Amino acid sequence: MADLNCNPNSASDMLTLDGIRDSLIRQEDTIVFSLIERAKFPLNRKMYYNNHTSIPGFSGSLVEFVVKETEAIQAKAGRYENPEENPFFPKDLPRPLVPPHKYPNVLHPAGASINMNKAIWDFYINKFLPLLVADGDDGNYAATAASDLVCLQALSRRIHCGKYVAEVKFRDTPKEYEPPIRSKERDTLMRLLTFEAVEEAVKKRVEKKAMVFGQEVTLNNTSEGKPKIDPSLVSRLYGEWVMPLTKEVEVDYLLRRLE
Amino acid sequence: MADLNCNPNSASDMLTLDGIRDSLIRQEDTIVFSLIERAKFPLNRKMYYNNHTSIPGFSGSLVEFVVKETEAIQAKAGRYENPEENPFFPKDLPRPLVPPHKYPNVLHPAGASINMNKAIWDFYINKFLPLLVADGDDGNYAATAASDLVCLQALSRRIHCGKYVAEVKFRDTPKEYEPPIRSKERDTLMRLLTFEAVEEAVKKRVEKKAMVFGQEVTLNNTSEGKPKIDPSLVSRLYGEWVMPLTKEVEVDYLLRRLE
Repeated sequence: MADLNCNPNSASDMLTLDGIRDSLIRQEDTIVFSLIERAKFPLNRKMYYNNHTSIPGFSGSLVEFVVKETEAIQAKAGRYENPEENPFFPKDLPRPLVPPHKYPNVLHPAGASINMNKAIWDFYINKFLPLLVADGDDGNYAATAASDLVCLQALSRRIHCGKYVAEVKFRDTPKEYEPPIRSKERDTLMRLLTFEAVEEAVKKRVEKKAMVFGQEVTLNNTSEGKPKIDPSLVSRLYGEWVMPLTKEVEVDYLLRRLE
Repeated sequence: MADLNCNPNSASDMLTLDGIRDSLIRQEDTIVFSLIERAKFPLNRKMYYNNHTSIPGFSGSLVEFVVKETEAIQAKAGRYENPEENPFFPKDLPRPLVPPHKYPNVLHPAGASINMNKAIWDFYINKFLPLLVADGDDGNYAATAASDLVCLQALSRRIHCGKYVAEVKFRDTPKEYEPPIRSKERDTLMRLLTFEAVEEAVKKRVEKKAMVFGQEVTLNNTSEGKPKIDPSLVSRLYGEWVMPLTKEVEVDYLLRRLE
């Protein structure tokens, strides 16, 4: 199960680019599954309106309510002790009620606190979701919001693994990264971190995963009917949002790496 | 999206066995995805011990805490207004804070309240999970418990769709069911509801789904390495627990159908 995490499982495990890549590849499956599951429901637009519901002591949309409250429970169970996890509502998060687990500490402290979740929330809810799901309202707001949380958490975890990518790349060739870090050259750092051929391969692979995992499997035939989600949309998700935001995390991390 | 629900989407939709079957087939995918996702984590055994954690005002295991508290949030968001949803902790569940959605009411009132979740919890946690996942402890208790909840909810929804199966079968041939209902002959009802060839086909199909959805998809090749979960275990899950418990729900429902 070494491929699950970007963070090493134990202090004796090395942080390697291969290990991180394995984790990112496994996380693609999680993301594709979560999108297929969200697409079972229509948009359920009212869930995303502020003040559609009147929840005592809460101003915001129903999806905000479900995500914030569920994060609070998971925080009590220790979710955010894991350095790979970043909450969408970090303010007033309760403290864990479980004994601490010793996660190896490999990130630079200044970079560890980077949180890109506002941007992730914004593109997911406002831009991506209307492309993914059918319009309409089936009333299943609670199940839909729970499904949104699973998607958001999967995307967030993937994108914040950029911290580990940046850390391992910095350790491999510090001399290459130090000058643009010192002179705060975002564009140079972004260029150093961009490999177009790799990105194209990732986009092709996630499209294929959406095709394979989204197909209707029958006993006679494995590719009947149209897939449950549009595979090209998953490629676009990665090309327009997941990979650019991962690189934003990487650049933000590197800019603080020498503090 | 008519295949998502066992309950008709609107009052004008008919309750048909074909519609319910489509929903059950789609739910197989949800169940297989949820199991693959749970199997990313090791057993994390301490999560299931009573009193491993000291949570103020709560006696029970960490997984009970996460499931109960998350259900309470989802109840506020209206989850259990949907007659297909049954909570694992129905006691003291908060009332919904959202305007009600009009779900068509097709079940007999006495049968609607059947809740098989104690049996589902027991087989899932105590019997099935140790077969599904690797032994070990990676500290990710919150994420693991959230993943257990997704599995439990998917299994519960599937098994409780037995109410709809029973209702539609009763409506199709009431004369066949009334005598054993009146004389409370569980065994006769169970025989009337059992179609071994259909059950064998379902077991084969879910095994194939576990193979297809659990494979490692690469750009060159779609069946590399060993699948993420043992496909035969999903067949066993259906054969030993899911289908027998669905039929228990069907029999319990029918026994109250003439009240």
